Amino acid sequence: MNAPDNRDAEIEQAVREVGLRAKAAAAALAQSTAAQRTRALEAAAAAIRAASAQIIEANRADMAAAQNQSLSAAMLDRLRLDAGRVEAMAAGVAAVAALPDPLGRTLHETTRPNGLHIARVSVPLGVIGIIYESRPNVTADAGALCLRAGNAAILRGGSESRQSSAAILACLRRALAETGLPEDAMQGLPTTDRRAVGALLRLADCVDIIVPRGGRGLIERVQQESRIPVLAHLDGLCHTYVDGGADPAKARRIVLNAKMRRTGVCGATETLLIDRRIAAAELPGIAEDLRAAGCELRGDDAARAIDPRIGLASEADWDTEYLDAILAIAVVDGVAGAIRHIARHGSHHTEAIVTEDKAVAERFLAEVDAAIVLVNASTQFADGGEFGMGAEIGIATGKLHARGPVGAEQLTSYKYLVRGTGQIRP
Amino acid sequence: MNAPDNRDAEIEQAVREVGLRAKAAAAALAQSTAAQRTRALEAAAAAIRAASAQIIEANRADMAAAQNQSLSAAMLDRLRLDAGRVEAMAAGVAAVAALPDPLGRTLHETTRPNGLHIARVSVPLGVIGIIYESRPNVTADAGALCLRAGNAAILRGGSESRQSSAAILACLRRALAETGLPEDAMQGLPTTDRRAVGALLRLADCVDIIVPRGGRGLIERVQQESRIPVLAHLDGLCHTYVDGGADPAKARRIVLNAKMRRTGVCGATETLLIDRRIAAAELPGIAEDLRAAGCELRGDDAARAIDPRIGLASEADWDTEYLDAILAIAVVDGVAGAIRHIARHGSHHTEAIVTEDKAVAERFLAEVDAAIVLVNASTQFADGGEFGMGAEIGIATGKLHARGPVGAEQLTSYKYLVRGTGQIRP
Repeated sequence: MNAPDNRDAEIEQAVREVGLRAKAAAAALAQSTAAQRTRALEAAAAAIRAASAQIIEANRADMAAAQNQSLSAAMLDRLRLDAGRVEAMAAGVAAVAALPDPLGRTLHETTRPNGLHIARVSVPLGVIGIIYESRPNVTADAGALCLRAGNAAILRGGSESRQSSAAILACLRRALAETGLPEDAMQGLPTTDRRAVGALLRLADCVDIIVPRGGRGLIERVQQESRIPVLAHLDGLCHTYVDGGADPAKARRIVLNAKMRRTGVCGATETLLIDRRIAAAELPGIAEDLRAAGCELRGDDAARAIDPRIGLASEADWDTEYLDAILAIAVVDGVAGAIRHIARHGSHHTEAIVTEDKAVAERFLAEVDAAIVLVNASTQFADGGEFGMGAEIGIATGKLHARGPVGAEQLTSYKYLVRGTGQIRP
Repeated sequence: MNAPDNRDAEIEQAVREVGLRAKAAAAALAQSTAAQRTRALEAAAAAIRAASAQIIEANRADMAAAQNQSLSAAMLDRLRLDAGRVEAMAAGVAAVAALPDPLGRTLHETTRPNGLHIARVSVPLGVIGIIYESRPNVTADAGALCLRAGNAAILRGGSESRQSSAAILACLRRALAETGLPEDAMQGLPTTDRRAVGALLRLADCVDIIVPRGGRGLIERVQQESRIPVLAHLDGLCHTYVDGGADPAKARRIVLNAKMRRTGVCGATETLLIDRRIAAAELPGIAEDLRAAGCELRGDDAARAIDPRIGLASEADWDTEYLDAILAIAVVDGVAGAIRHIARHGSHHTEAIVTEDKAVAERFLAEVDAAIVLVNASTQFADGGEFGMGAEIGIATGKLHARGPVGAEQLTSYKYLVRGTGQIRP
């Protein structure tokens, strides 16, 4: 029977057509002005506001279908839209419209002894494929950020948010058309069939970069299957190290916030490292705050000797991103011990030290290999908005192209413009 | 018989050990100072000069073996070293020692309203795998550039240059050891068996980036097989467009140089595009210069109608990187026609326009999608040295991470250093 093969080929072909249209739209978008892109983003915010009722209606249909599929309460909450959430989404798009335009900036320029003037100027990346899970507002957030940087986007949301995402996407496309920019700069995939995602990940001649947003399973699948470079992070196994030179009150406040402000975000601290010199004095107070906030504690023998109410951590705990109200606690030998622990168990995402000792802080900043290293601040600041980028499409832990929060500036490439007066090379 | 399988596993394991040693060396190197790296590079230049006789002797053995394998005269010339070439190699390493150090630069900094100070600071990429063909001096050039940027390198030269490369590599390692830096920051592969290259391309947990240098066959194999990001260009199919607004004398000088200065380099022009408005007046002179320099010409019908001595170009000629004294010639309708031809046949490497019309020049600069776009200058300037980078490891045509000449600065990543005073996130 040929049917499945035919369907594979059909999906492949339909996804390729989306890719080719995106590529053509990206070429047109690369020649648009910053003012045009700003107008399109403002129009998109207005279109979302105007279509609030339709978006909420589409979302009701998604919610009804999801309830039949017995999704978890957390997933249902991520899927749900109401008037407040739609307004927040529109405000987010308007905020991206107000961001400085990252294109056409001269990143570097030089005049050579032979008179050639060489300028490195920022240009769009091209076509960005975004694959995400239930939250339909990613359609607006990610689409807006791509557009700010002059990129076309192919937006593939979770099948459970299909109708909500389609309603939001329609607003983006309407705004593009109203502003005289190509509608195909924002497209979805032609089917929610998972094979379409595979086809997108193989579309290396049309798509320049893939940004997956979601759980570990999604990121792993994308990193495995993609023939296109991926900007993402697999884990956010962040540590906070309380050094012997820490201000105790600051340490308590920072650890509590780093773990408990929101436990499900990638910048949440998962392991507390505490300097042996002050563990006996300071760990009980830190543990007390955390327990009062509802956090389960799992420590090594040294931590449990100080506070027996701390549970026993297994080897696996040092490598677990809980994304929950659980904290692993290890007593380490000073900053060197903390750096060793992080080198072995960290995920190169975000790491923090609490200390008043400047030399120790500088050593931690220099030696820890992570996208973000903080001194005397909560790991929960790992966020493009908090970094002043206005918005982010995610946080990357690779060392290539963009590392840390990925904002509009990170969604660009550059080219060299060389202006001469007839120079030939000797 | 198990022997081949065992050999596969042995090679895999031996390459993995090289990778793990490189990773450890890279971590140590990341903490070295700019002064240490400079001293190591100076010591490497001195070591190459001191070992000149041994390097030439090793090269004689390679040359003898190569002559038995009937390599082409061009390949034998690339392989051959003499006292002058060894001295040039040492001088190249000394020049890299004198380059500004690209690490620890503050690329961007900001203080947030909450008082957090955020700095984006350049750091090494880590481990760079370099796969190259016959020219043994790449060992010194590429190794030095990696070291300047604090990276460890795994250098895999062509098997025909095995002994020459080993002698040069020994100089680099001696210099590292003398300077107190880890010798394993510069390593070769344990065997010239081609399977070792495959194993290197799969070593994604040890190697951060692969830089292939060589012909199309090598680059294609690496791009196909690698599970690690590759910085390279597949083709350098460069165009020079002579616009109706060109200064005729400049146009003749630039086209001749762009094609004939060296025909085997990636920045050599392969196709001349000439504006229909001036083709009849200017093409004969341009063609005359090229023929006098020994260049074969293949044109479209319009070009041949003007100068019947031009041969007939086939469709394939527009997509061929000759790397030889052959030039394809197409008559186009102004700058729009040139931009269309380049969009269809270009390789996103280097493109040039000759014109005195500033508006036309700016349109070409804006609309051509290539790593390097030149006005009134030869495409042969596509070179890191000519761009003031001091040296380059290659030219990249992808849009991610680094585009255009890849110098020491492009062999870095960054991390965010965040300094606070106890900030927690609301």
